[in-house]
Amino acid sequence: MAEKPRRPRAETPKGFRDYFGTEVTERKAMLDAIAGVYHRYGFDPLETAAVETVEALGKFLPDVDRPNEGVFAWQDEDADWLALRYDLTAPLARVAAQYRNDLPSPYRRYAMGPVWRNEKPGPGRFRQFYQCDADTVGSASVAADAEICAMLADALETVGIPRGDYVVKVNNRKVLSGILEALTYEGTPEIGSVREALNTPIREFGFIDTDAVLRTIDKFDKVGRQGVIELLTTGRLDQSGAEIPGVGLKISDAQTIVAFMESKGRNNTETIANLRGLLSQSESGLAGVDELAEISDLLAAQGYGPDRIIIDPGVVRGLGYYTGPVYEAELTFQITDEKGRPRNFGSVAGGGRYDGLVKRFTGQDVPATGVSIGVDRLLAALRAKGRVGGEAEGPVVVTVMDRDRMADYMGMVGELRQAGIRAEVYLGNPKNFGNQLKYADKRSSPIAVIQGGNEAATGTVILKDLILGAKIAESATLEEWKDRPAQVEIPRADLVAAVRKMLGK
Amino acid sequence: MAEKPRRPRAETPKGFRDYFGTEVTERKAMLDAIAGVYHRYGFDPLETAAVETVEALGKFLPDVDRPNEGVFAWQDEDADWLALRYDLTAPLARVAAQYRNDLPSPYRRYAMGPVWRNEKPGPGRFRQFYQCDADTVGSASVAADAEICAMLADALETVGIPRGDYVVKVNNRKVLSGILEALTYEGTPEIGSVREALNTPIREFGFIDTDAVLRTIDKFDKVGRQGVIELLTTGRLDQSGAEIPGVGLKISDAQTIVAFMESKGRNNTETIANLRGLLSQSESGLAGVDELAEISDLLAAQGYGPDRIIIDPGVVRGLGYYTGPVYEAELTFQITDEKGRPRNFGSVAGGGRYDGLVKRFTGQDVPATGVSIGVDRLLAALRAKGRVGGEAEGPVVVTVMDRDRMADYMGMVGELRQAGIRAEVYLGNPKNFGNQLKYADKRSSPIAVIQGGNEAATGTVILKDLILGAKIAESATLEEWKDRPAQVEIPRADLVAAVRKMLGK
Repeated sequence: MAEKPRRPRAETPKGFRDYFGTEVTERKAMLDAIAGVYHRYGFDPLETAAVETVEALGKFLPDVDRPNEGVFAWQDEDADWLALRYDLTAPLARVAAQYRNDLPSPYRRYAMGPVWRNEKPGPGRFRQFYQCDADTVGSASVAADAEICAMLADALETVGIPRGDYVVKVNNRKVLSGILEALTYEGTPEIGSVREALNTPIREFGFIDTDAVLRTIDKFDKVGRQGVIELLTTGRLDQSGAEIPGVGLKISDAQTIVAFMESKGRNNTETIANLRGLLSQSESGLAGVDELAEISDLLAAQGYGPDRIIIDPGVVRGLGYYTGPVYEAELTFQITDEKGRPRNFGSVAGGGRYDGLVKRFTGQDVPATGVSIGVDRLLAALRAKGRVGGEAEGPVVVTVMDRDRMADYMGMVGELRQAGIRAEVYLGNPKNFGNQLKYADKRSSPIAVIQGGNEAATGTVILKDLILGAKIAESATLEEWKDRPAQVEIPRADLVAAVRKMLGK
Repeated sequence: MAEKPRRPRAETPKGFRDYFGTEVTERKAMLDAIAGVYHRYGFDPLETAAVETVEALGKFLPDVDRPNEGVFAWQDEDADWLALRYDLTAPLARVAAQYRNDLPSPYRRYAMGPVWRNEKPGPGRFRQFYQCDADTVGSASVAADAEICAMLADALETVGIPRGDYVVKVNNRKVLSGILEALTYEGTPEIGSVREALNTPIREFGFIDTDAVLRTIDKFDKVGRQGVIELLTTGRLDQSGAEIPGVGLKISDAQTIVAFMESKGRNNTETIANLRGLLSQSESGLAGVDELAEISDLLAAQGYGPDRIIIDPGVVRGLGYYTGPVYEAELTFQITDEKGRPRNFGSVAGGGRYDGLVKRFTGQDVPATGVSIGVDRLLAALRAKGRVGGEAEGPVVVTVMDRDRMADYMGMVGELRQAGIRAEVYLGNPKNFGNQLKYADKRSSPIAVIQGGNEAATGTVILKDLILGAKIAESATLEEWKDRPAQVEIPRADLVAAVRKMLGK
């Protein structure tokens, strides 16, 4: 028996999603507002293609925790391997190298758009998502870092996070390096990532695995002070009783690192003094502290005080990737988590200074610094604050009572649209009027316009206030609504004015 | 000898391109304006992922002229084939089937975004480009087609194509089918695409290859009346002397088809009368004429007269794909082509009614109609009309005369930004002041702000009017500029006010 050809499944591919209506427009409005701030700061937009050569992209993500995360890649007819970009920084690196003779230097650019990750999808974790980045390429000055911190604060306020509900925290990779340098060893001290040694007691080699230290102290919020000390030394038992191996530091060294993380004072001046004390032995560490002091001064000169931007040595996220100042925007208001407990909303953006951006291509070091805003996280924050997510603006729906007078109805809808009012004529089968009102309901329509034969004969139309109607239907007592009719008959000539009035416009 | 690891090439992948600065913002502004019109018409945005399953997408493009055009596809870890979308209609089909119980019906949706084609790149032909579509799914009424024609006219005017510089032409696939039906044969008449017979004299089979007829009459503009008649019958020699085979129709049949294409009268009423005459023998053809008449009436009721939308039986483009009304927006102003000859700008948008959108997935016919605007073409038209492409708004550049006073310069730039003025501080190495002015020039900066030690001591800054300066440098006689100094010294406290004045804001 011949099989019937199977119909294709109508399914979004696994790990991808569709965005409808306000999901699209709310994100767009937020990104437009951010782009306005970036523009004012002199940043220019750059839009590269979704596709890069695997060669230019580098095949794997820099995230050390998940080295096997991949990209979506395929082989071209010419045997070139192509891939979807996994972030907006790799394409910037390619552009900065490719157009290095044409671009202004320093080059301030912003980019917004989707990126793709070939990783296992999970709840709230998609294989395509938006990023929104701003970077300055070609400036070694910490003024570039300070500027991005100020811009980040402005962007957050512009989209609707009020001052006091966020803080931009600044740290410096060099400061932590200085701390690690200053530790004493039995063996030969050497700083660096020694992946091979990861499963061996590191102390025996006289190495510190910097990446392992960074990953550990990044867990401060989760496991607390004592937990971090245990993990930096001999290890600890997790909640399930499983043994988590330690990094192998001496207890005194671990305490020094924790002291560093807790060195934030009541203000930047005090924090900087604390850091200088901890780093008195490290020249490069002190250079990092000087940079933090300079950033603090530059920001103060522009009026960005500690209510918006603070130095916080506890900021670690992604530190391994960076070479100088790092910064992170944290939302400080509370939300209720999935278990009903209040917690801070947390980080919505992060970035810092990195070298080697263009070096892969040209061999030359090009200093760069930049920030990436987590678009979905920030949008979720705006929803949590009630800044977006109001009712969509549904269209006025002109119903069709008489199929032969479609031209009349199109005339009405045309007038409304010309007046700037969002409006539709019902385009389904008009036979069942109930279906038309159901349609209007589904469209969140504020008003239904109705003109049957009687109204047409007398030159009127009926406006049905669907929002008021819904309220009346919900209300237990009709008393409060009885003076407000949910339906009015008006002269046809007054259509636009009457609709506008009912819309409160 | 060990080879040194080769550096990756910093190259945009073949057939892709990068968009910088105003290339991004001008397209965005145009799409935003179009989205505003679509919104007013009650269309909701839909944003699907770039990636679809090959199964849902259908592997090949519907374009009959280029059946081998492909998609970018790859196999997932789960052995599913995924691909980048090649248009915005295929994802709409998937969405309309997948969410058919949740979406309003009819469903008006718009979509804007990149699509990808795995085809040989050529000059001006890229493998990623933007589309901007609006479709109504689930309405069999020609009011839906009329609405989209009106919306297209509004969209063109909104982005800056004045009335008179464009026309939306409407035709109907059923009318041409009626013409073909009415032809007489020796053999059994049968309408349809008979690809197998393409290389054989078609007349021997009693078939008309509709697709071949459509492709031929689409060449009317290129080869003219006589050329089309030759191609529809026995063939012709092209300019190079090569023999182009004919479709194999009788000369009288070819003349009937050409008469149909030339049946546009002085107005829609006359065109419709002409068509009725030609189609008196075809019931389905007359049904198509009735639809055209109804569309004409519905548009007239909204005030869209023949200055904006006309019935034109000569519109053929894509007719093979469609099942009812088809429409095309043509820009009628002249531009100069690459050989210096004047020609009409031509088509920038097209669409029509098509069935079978959802049928592939569910087996049910769902009527739909929609338009696609050629984003790059329309943007090129706006550039040709001088509607976009003015100078980019460069930032005011605050120069750095004294590296130690960076906080002062940042303070200035901060004030300007807070006042809504696009401004930057120079972040490169400040040692060479000439480089700073070169940078300002590259940034199309209108004003350079300068404060050296003397100015700082006396509490002033210097504003250098770079636009005026450039004009003076260009001008043969300095007379006309001598009263306008290109440089002024102002009190530091007046910075914002003086910059604003110089910018003419």
